[in-house]
Amino acid sequence: MSKVIDKNMSQSKVLENILFDAEAIEGLRKLLAERRPTKVFFLVDENTHEHCLPVLLQALGELPHTEVLEVAPGEESKSPEVLVQLWYAMSELGADRHCMMINVGGGMITDLGGFLAGTYLRGISFVNVPTSLLAMVDASAGGKNGINLDSLKNRVGLFLEPELVCIVPQFLESLPDREMLSGFAEMLKHGLIADSEYWGECSRFPIREQAPSGEMIRRSVEIKSAIVSRDFRESGLRKVLNFGHTVGHSIETAGMQTDDPLLHGEAIALGMIAELELSVKFTGLSKEEKDSAVRAIHGIYGELPRGFKSSDLLNFMRSDKKNIGGEIRFSLLREIGEAVPDVSIGEEDITKALKHL
Amino acid sequence: MSKVIDKNMSQSKVLENILFDAEAIEGLRKLLAERRPTKVFFLVDENTHEHCLPVLLQALGELPHTEVLEVAPGEESKSPEVLVQLWYAMSELGADRHCMMINVGGGMITDLGGFLAGTYLRGISFVNVPTSLLAMVDASAGGKNGINLDSLKNRVGLFLEPELVCIVPQFLESLPDREMLSGFAEMLKHGLIADSEYWGECSRFPIREQAPSGEMIRRSVEIKSAIVSRDFRESGLRKVLNFGHTVGHSIETAGMQTDDPLLHGEAIALGMIAELELSVKFTGLSKEEKDSAVRAIHGIYGELPRGFKSSDLLNFMRSDKKNIGGEIRFSLLREIGEAVPDVSIGEEDITKALKHL
Repeated sequence: MSKVIDKNMSQSKVLENILFDAEAIEGLRKLLAERRPTKVFFLVDENTHEHCLPVLLQALGELPHTEVLEVAPGEESKSPEVLVQLWYAMSELGADRHCMMINVGGGMITDLGGFLAGTYLRGISFVNVPTSLLAMVDASAGGKNGINLDSLKNRVGLFLEPELVCIVPQFLESLPDREMLSGFAEMLKHGLIADSEYWGECSRFPIREQAPSGEMIRRSVEIKSAIVSRDFRESGLRKVLNFGHTVGHSIETAGMQTDDPLLHGEAIALGMIAELELSVKFTGLSKEEKDSAVRAIHGIYGELPRGFKSSDLLNFMRSDKKNIGGEIRFSLLREIGEAVPDVSIGEEDITKALKHL
Repeated sequence: MSKVIDKNMSQSKVLENILFDAEAIEGLRKLLAERRPTKVFFLVDENTHEHCLPVLLQALGELPHTEVLEVAPGEESKSPEVLVQLWYAMSELGADRHCMMINVGGGMITDLGGFLAGTYLRGISFVNVPTSLLAMVDASAGGKNGINLDSLKNRVGLFLEPELVCIVPQFLESLPDREMLSGFAEMLKHGLIADSEYWGECSRFPIREQAPSGEMIRRSVEIKSAIVSRDFRESGLRKVLNFGHTVGHSIETAGMQTDDPLLHGEAIALGMIAELELSVKFTGLSKEEKDSAVRAIHGIYGELPRGFKSSDLLNFMRSDKKNIGGEIRFSLLREIGEAVPDVSIGEEDITKALKHL
């Protein structure tokens, strides 16, 4: 596969509905003035209600007719039960076709709120204001939303782009360190699969000391948007975004069953280490590039939990919703900055790679 | 507004995914052979499970990997609770992205099943096999699906076209007479809003003695599809399909609160009578055309329930989800075969028209 990202794409249409920093607030203000929604519904969790919503409301100025829908923080709120409650709440609060929903929070909120808005009255206008680094660099582009069915993540949902995504790094100020590191894993991944220069920049960035700038975040979003815009419904190219995720998701699922579950990006960091090993054997990644990448990831994340049972992880991989038939498929690297989707690998080789964790 | 329907559109693209009679079965067989879904899920209710599914299965021949999901008949199954149960059921039965859903039933089944398929794993392939006349002429085209929130009809759902709609009039053989008459109201409406010749044909058709032919049904579907294809998301033109429905829906809602609820088409027949009266005053329909249309509707439906309170009906009209702000809007007729959307009418005039019921 040839390189998917042209460095000059930054000004292209793919980022049309994603705005950054002051432009983001200005864009949202303009959209509200144009649309004049009958009512604005903010979906928040307890944390973003306290830390982010007031900042946003102050920046936006006076808004007539607002309602705030608050859910409990955490993945548990991405459930059918909460979704149904929210459908009823919107209805009781008189939401009509010309109201607008603004989702203010991490990926849980933007996933849940996007699905809520996409289905209420067969779809009302919605805007995402991601407040975690992970949501900014990952959930902001691609139009995926949805809820979980118990432990089955995103089992139900839609592909649907928000009208606008506002990325305001100021919100990262209240983000816990571990959450910051979790989001950073996706930035590293974007470099690894599509842009070796960006990978270099990220791998040297002192993420434990400072938040990434709007510019750094923008490049991640550009990479993801460029890939997604060429494959909106995930039939081919888009799969390269799954690098690190076949193993990573299984680790995340295994972690959920312990007392100290891993964050998504922590699991993906481990997943990338295992899949870098597989890339050497199956897609010709050089041992030197692999070693330097693994070293960088270890340098950033330090000690991550170990000791997951290979047989458990394999079980979870087998039930991944991306599988076709019984095969376990990976997106791997040919070199740093270039990914290859759809590599089927046998269980014996997977088990060997897991030993490196 | 000029005529929206060109009589020569029958061969056009709008009916591409809707097939009739033997072609429908053949088309479905071909689609299954091409797609080779990992599993086929049939959604049925008790009645279509007994009367229609066996016929369909026999016509299709051997299918590997099928599952049948059965829900209780009646509008109550179009609920969040049933939807959530079905999401879990599909998941437990191992539905993956490459399975296919075939909805076999009336509008309740195609609405519920379309929403289920459109959201499970962010959308799997689905086919509708409408088995009631109403579902054939109304729900088959337009891509609307969804569920109710208590008495709020279709409060949640999607605009999403099925991959294929199979219209097989043979299924009408087991349809009760009252259901047949209910579906026929939409056929009459299609004539009234878009095709005076078709209206003439329908208004003389002995619907109490025989089922309409595939050809007659096809013309109804053509009219609806042509309107919908020009306005998929219901911003303008599509509203002409609401003729008879502003009053009709309010009567349907009022009827739900009695021991003997009206069927959709029965309420629409009454709604059309009231809106024919309004058309004379507001959109210049001639008194002669109005009188002949009202006479024809009475001739077909005979005695329909009366005695709804105007104030109740007005209340329901006010809360219709199609309203913008507080106005009550209608789609009315300029002449038989030509409709005008978006006519705002004051409550006094509406009350007068309701007296004709």
